[in-house]
Order: sequence, then structure tokens, then C-alpha cells
Amino acid sequence: MSKNITKRAENFSKWYNDIIVHADLAENSGVRGCMVIKPYGFAIWEEMKKVLDQMFKESGHVNAYFPIFIPKSFFSKEASHVDGFAKECAVVTHYRLKNDADGRIVVDENAKLEEELIVRPTSETIIWDTYKKWIKSYRDLPLLINQWANVVRWEMRTRLFLRTSEFLWQEGHTAHETDKEAIEETKKILFIYKDFIEGTLGIPVIEGLKSDREKFAGAIDTYCVEALMQDGKALQAGTSHFLGQNFAKAFDVKFANRSGKLDYVWASSWGVSTRLIGALVMTHSDDRGLILPPKLAPYQVVLIPIYHSQEEYDAIVHKMNIISKELRALGIRVKEDFRDTYKPGWKFSEYEVKGVPVRIAMGPRDLANQTIEIVRRDNLEKQNINIADVNSVVMKMIDEMQTSLFLQAKSFQEKNTFIIDNFDDFKKKINLGGFVLAHWDGTSQTEDKIKKLTKATIRCIPISIKSEKGKCILTGNPSNQRVIFAKSY
Amino acid sequence: MSKNITKRAENFSKWYNDIIVHADLAENSGVRGCMVIKPYGFAIWEEMKKVLDQMFKESGHVNAYFPIFIPKSFFSKEASHVDGFAKECAVVTHYRLKNDADGRIVVDENAKLEEELIVRPTSETIIWDTYKKWIKSYRDLPLLINQWANVVRWEMRTRLFLRTSEFLWQEGHTAHETDKEAIEETKKILFIYKDFIEGTLGIPVIEGLKSDREKFAGAIDTYCVEALMQDGKALQAGTSHFLGQNFAKAFDVKFANRSGKLDYVWASSWGVSTRLIGALVMTHSDDRGLILPPKLAPYQVVLIPIYHSQEEYDAIVHKMNIISKELRALGIRVKEDFRDTYKPGWKFSEYEVKGVPVRIAMGPRDLANQTIEIVRRDNLEKQNINIADVNSVVMKMIDEMQTSLFLQAKSFQEKNTFIIDNFDDFKKKINLGGFVLAHWDGTSQTEDKIKKLTKATIRCIPISIKSEKGKCILTGNPSNQRVIFAKSY
Repeated sequence: MSKNITKRAENFSKWYNDIIVHADLAENSGVRGCMVIKPYGFAIWEEMKKVLDQMFKESGHVNAYFPIFIPKSFFSKEASHVDGFAKECAVVTHYRLKNDADGRIVVDENAKLEEELIVRPTSETIIWDTYKKWIKSYRDLPLLINQWANVVRWEMRTRLFLRTSEFLWQEGHTAHETDKEAIEETKKILFIYKDFIEGTLGIPVIEGLKSDREKFAGAIDTYCVEALMQDGKALQAGTSHFLGQNFAKAFDVKFANRSGKLDYVWASSWGVSTRLIGALVMTHSDDRGLILPPKLAPYQVVLIPIYHSQEEYDAIVHKMNIISKELRALGIRVKEDFRDTYKPGWKFSEYEVKGVPVRIAMGPRDLANQTIEIVRRDNLEKQNINIADVNSVVMKMIDEMQTSLFLQAKSFQEKNTFIIDNFDDFKKKINLGGFVLAHWDGTSQTEDKIKKLTKATIRCIPISIKSEKGKCILTGNPSNQRVIFAKSY
Repeated sequence: MSKNITKRAENFSKWYNDIIVHADLAENSGVRGCMVIKPYGFAIWEEMKKVLDQMFKESGHVNAYFPIFIPKSFFSKEASHVDGFAKECAVVTHYRLKNDADGRIVVDENAKLEEELIVRPTSETIIWDTYKKWIKSYRDLPLLINQWANVVRWEMRTRLFLRTSEFLWQEGHTAHETDKEAIEETKKILFIYKDFIEGTLGIPVIEGLKSDREKFAGAIDTYCVEALMQDGKALQAGTSHFLGQNFAKAFDVKFANRSGKLDYVWASSWGVSTRLIGALVMTHSDDRGLILPPKLAPYQVVLIPIYHSQEEYDAIVHKMNIISKELRALGIRVKEDFRDTYKPGWKFSEYEVKGVPVRIAMGPRDLANQTIEIVRRDNLEKQNINIADVNSVVMKMIDEMQTSLFLQAKSFQEKNTFIIDNFDDFKKKINLGGFVLAHWDGTSQTEDKIKKLTKATIRCIPISIKSEKGKCILTGNPSNQRVIFAKSY
């Protein structure tokens, strides 16, 4: 009955694409590297936005909107920023089309911009150019601003959700009086991300610092949360940067502090993107299709009638409408699929692939017995229960499934985290996949060598594990802490 | 106490800008023609989005996301579309920056796109290119999809919210089996817009059809809702287009209909934008600042303590926290401004300019009497009431203010709508401002002449007024219905 989905064990990458396509999440568009996020995929993003936006607001942040275009010269102002990553981007050079002599549409060469505009790859520069006007005194601080936006980074090799030329994200940009406050903010957001990704997406993450080599260009410190996918590769799920005074200096943003002296403002920036949908797929789904944590599922319950006659249809749909109404009253998102144009078997398969957490079916025998059949998507357990018990069973099932998905992923992560002290073992483990906790001497040189030899990078320097004296896995030089190595997306 | 706001009677346009700036809604950015929507302005847009998105979803629509870039060739496919308006737009020609020999950042000429990409001015073309893949049979219809997005139309003369090169909007794009269904959808959305703009924004609108000259390029019929601003100019508040089979033909989107035959799909598209914030300002605000309908106000109530000693501050803030908690429990959005860094008078002025509907203040005498002072923003009526009555008074005040703003604007619109049958009177009235209901012979030629002579355009052919035989205001040729003329934004 299942749609034609490649098995994970056969080809993980093809399996991933099959899920995205068959679950109707997204597809490639007619524009190189850009995706169309389909209604079902977008509904998941909307649920994510709703939860995360609420968390930002409860912690004192507000939303705003800054221009999509950034003058080219802005990128030159923060040197390390542009060296780091701002090169591959979409450049606007003209502002008009016209018909040529043959009536074809061409770019009007007379409408050339004096200065090229860059479609934002991230907004630090345009925002700090704006903050200069907003910040005069300590009384204007802190500024705790977030924006939900599209950004563009020209990518040569793209994968739906994981790496596309345009993607959707949120980017927070905050301004503070002191380094201490800015660092506190950076960490506060890191833990908001962790709570959100673990609590809502059900994806366990390890929080830590990026090495200098892996940190955001323009940041003093980049904090991140790292997740482990089912194929043993790591995925960076969110980053929070302490920017020091780098952008304030680049854009000359000074404020009168409490002693009346002028000082540069301290900053943080942080973001998560539609990439999280890719992480969601690769953490929970199985060979039958998508599995969605109930908290994010656009429909948490689907109702499917099974019938042979119009009479049966009417009676069952009548019952199902009552069930639906009661579930909705409890705040549950319900899909009634009462369409006569598709058979029940087709619908079963459809919602299985789409990862709807709970499926409720009712046939003529159920009608006679006042029962329904209920199936939980992740473990496929089937029960026949009395109609009177539907509400409580569904509520319990949704709660249990949310918890169970997290615990299962957590157990996977733990089983696939290895403490390694020997470089031969290291190479083997890295190749098989998983997080490898190993000592590192702290130099970029060693990091580069390890990457060349194994394709592994330092995912993070975890902040929750104890420091421990040891010897670097490659050089044998002294080390104070194990870091996480892995191959990554 | 008021900030320095130009009076409407002196210079309406300057007054408008003063309100936008002093109420902290938006500002011009460092990028020509693009605005920064500041947190307070963005919060109004968020409230609008929330209400309208809910209305779309309740009427069966879903959200999705399509690429921001459109290949140039797509614009050639629907000829009337591109002739109409798609010329002034941002053109992406390159995809990389690099450092030149002097270390300056320049466009990498080796990274030139084979085909230029246009930043979407509207998404019909990219969406219909996508729909081609989604629609095979009548079973795939209707498609009722909306997207919230940024769009870019290169504007030479810009005004905050009213006309900017980048703006935010929603654009719906639907696909149907029959012309009848597509027309029904077009009208359904028109009335959703009317309900939303009248019921939530408190702006009365007149719904009607655009003339051929004013309709959307690529549409068969454009429906619109038109509002009247305080200076007597009209503002198009939303449009809903019946596209016929134009885009389906241009992008070759056919479906197997119920008789098994292939037919082109029927379409609608529709949108409202951040322009509505401009309409909001110009409909309700006064010489003292912004006035916001309570349904959209980011804060519906502001609480301001008045005190001389720390003791008074503590006691009053304690009381106000209780009031705040109770109001929030009723679903009211409350701002507590307990900052010690600003004086009460400064705060009064601040929230007056920002249009917060209800201001509650409490001083030492109030504390002794268990009273508060409450002021409604639009009529500035001041009352002293007992603390025990705060909840009921606020609820009533908010309801009454919402209704009152609409009725006041409605009365203004009615007083400024004139039935005119003589061209000399027509010219005078048009010049003074307002909606002028006059007969028109139905030709574009006459419409153009009237525009040249008076600067007035046909805002719409109203659909709710009776047909009536008459003679064209300019040519004397026969006419079946009065249409609305006005100068417009």
C-alpha cells in the first residue's frame, strides 16, 4: 500500500528526497536552487513560527522588518564578515525591463544602478546601519529585535530544505550596553533554541561553541545546537552569535553610557531556518514516510470513513462529525477526509506518508459496535476503542507520541556518541557515523588536518560536559576538553 | 505637550509623514525606496495578518511559499501582463562578489547569470509555472493558495507605506474548474476584504469593478475596494482579479474535466499590502497623532503611574499590576509603562502620538480614593472611575471606540460623496476632494480625457448601487450607471 519510497538502508539521501516529495512538503522550482514550499510543508513551518515567535515575545523580543536589499558598500565595512561568506549572493544591477525592437523582453541598459544591491544573505549590515539612527543613549538599550524573512545565498549544490539558494528564517539582532548583557542574551537564545527544538520538534541537540574555523564571520563567539540525523551525520540546527562591538565599530554605533561617556554598542545575532524541516524529516521519519511530532503536525488526527453504501457513508460521517467537533473543542487539529473520490486504502497510505500522528477509521461494524479503529503513526499500533473514549485516548496518544519521539531520538543519539582516544578508531567511527567525543589541541591547523584526513569537522565544543585533561587525538598535544567531531550536512 | 506634528489643514502630506515618524511606525532606509518597518508599525501589520489569515483559512485557503526570483522569460509568456506593469523591477544579473586587486568588493563578472532573474513584482507567472505540475484533473481543483511575502516594484517617487520599492503583502492565487467558480472566488475574497477593512481597520470602503484602463494587466475583471482619506483623496485598499484562462493558457495548464476532456484552468488572484497601514493613518488620525482602532492596536491600554516618592511608586505600581493582570485575563493587550527614566507627561504625549486607545493613569489622590483616571484616545474624554469598574469600563470603551471610528469615517465618506451631473461642478468637486458619482459613457477615451482635464480617475464602477439611465458627464453619450471618480493615492 505504501508509496514508492526508497529504504533508508539502501540510499538515505534518496529516501530523504522521496519523503519530501511524497509527503508533499516541497519541490524544486523553475528557478535554479530555489524551492517551492508546498502547503503541507508550509503548514509545518507556520506551526514552528507560531511556537518560536511566542517564545521570543515572552522573552521581551519584538519583530520588525528591514529591506531585502543591501548596498554593496555595506559589505566592505565589516571586513571579516565579507571575507567569511558574503560572496556567493544575488546581485541586482538594473531596475527596468523593456521590449527590444523585436518585441522581446530585455534588460534596459539605461537603467543601471549606480551602486549594485545585494539580496540579503543575512541582515547584520543593513540593521546596524539602521541602529545607528536609533541608539543614542543607554536609555535606548537593549534593543531586542527579530525579523522573519527570506534570505538568499547562491548555492551550487542544493538539497530541499537543507541547502537552497533562497530560504526562510528568523534573524534576531540585539544591541546592549555591556558585553556581559550581550553574552547573556546570546546564551539565553541558545537555550530558547534548545527548548524549542527538543520540546516541540522532539530533536535532541547538544549545545556548544563553534571553533574559530567554524564560527560566523564577524562574530567573537558562535554558539550552536547540533543534532544527529539517522544516517549518523550531524546537522547544525541553530546558531547564536556574540558579535562583540564588531558591527557597532563598522557602522559607528555609539551610545552615551550611564557615566555619560560614549561607547560602542555590544551585539548578538541568532537564527534558525526552514532547514529545521529537513532535520525533522531526518530525525523521526521511517521507510513508510514522514513522522511528525504532534506539536507540529498540521493535522494531528485524520478521520477516514469506510463504507459500501450511501446509507453507511451518511451514518458514519455523521458520527465522525461529532467526534471531530469534540476533538477540535479540545484544541486538536483535525482533518476530516470524507471525500468520495478516493478509496479508504488510498487515504490510509496518503496520511501515513504525510506523518499524521493519529488515524481514526470507522466502518459498518464499528458503527454497529459504537467503536472506532485508532492507529498511532510512529509505532503503527492499532486499537479498537469505544467512541466514548476517543477524546481521552487521543489526548494521551498525542502526548505519549511527542515524548516517545524525543526519547527515541535521544536514545539514538546516545548510542551513536562515542568517546574515542585513538586516531585509527577515530577514523573508523567517523566513517560509520555518529558524534565522536575526542580531545583536540585547540588549533585550526589540527582541525584542518583532521578534516582533510576524515572529512569530519568540529561540530561544537560542548558547554555542558566537564573539562577533562587529555591528549589531542591527532597531535597528542595537551587538551582540556573533549569536543564533538562528526561528518555533517 | 504634543510632539511637533504639522496640522492636517496646513499640509496633509507633511502631517502624514510626521505621524509615521513620531508614532515610530516606519522610516526610510539606507536603500533607495525601501523602508524599515519599525517594531510598533510591524506589530500593527502582525495584528492585520493574524485576523486576515484566519479569515482566509476559515474560507478554505492554505498558505504556501514560492520563489522570490522569476526568470525573465516567464514575463514574456503573458503578453498583456508584462505590457501592463512588469517593467520597473529589480533585475539580478550576477551571483558572486569578489575582492579586486585593491581589496575592494566588486561584482565578479565571471559569475553572470545566463538568464536574468527578476525579483517578484507579483507571483502569477512563477505560480502558474508551478501549478502546471500540480493540476492534472478536476480532482486537483480548486487550488486555494495564499502567500505572505515581500515584493519589489521599482518606484521613483516613494512614500512610506503608500508607495515603496519593496513592500509586504499577501497574494492569493486560485485555480478552478469553471469560470463561474473562479468568479465566485474573486467576489468572495472581495467581500472578505471589505469585512476585514471595515470590521477590523474601521475604514469604510466601496466595492466595485475597475474600468479596463485601471484593471490589473492580465485580468479579465479587477474588483476592488476603495476608501476615502481625510484629505478627500481615494485609496485603493485591495484588489481581487478574475483572470479567466489567461495565465493557464500562457503556462499551458490544462486539466481533465468531469467529462474527461482537457480544458484550461480558470483563475483568480488577489492581494492587500502594508499600504493598508497608510490608509489606517489617513483615515483615523488627528493633529495630535495616530489613532488606532482597538482591534489592531499593539497595546489597547497603557498604564502610567504618577508619583513623587518611592513609596507612592511602589503602592501605585502594585495596584496597577493587579489591574493589568485582570485586563490581560480578559484578552486585552496591556502596556505597563512603569519606567522611572521618563516623566508621566512625556509618557502621556508618547502614547497619545502612538494612538493607544485607552490610557489609564493613577496618582497619589487616586490611590487614596481607589480610583483611576481613564482617557479614550479618539475623543480625549477623561473620566475618574472606581478601580472596581476598570474591567467593564475598558471593555465597553474599546468596543465603543472601534464602532465609533468606523461610524465617523463612514459619515465623513458619506458627506464627501457627491452626485454630479454637470462638468463644471464636476471639476470643482474633484478639486475639493471626495468621491464624485457621475455618469460615464464607458469608453477609455472619455476616461483619459477626464483624467487629463481634472486629474481624476475612475476609482470603481460600484456593484452595490442601482443602474440608472443618464448622460456621460463629459460627452453626453448615454450611460447606464454612475461610477466613482476621485483623485487618488
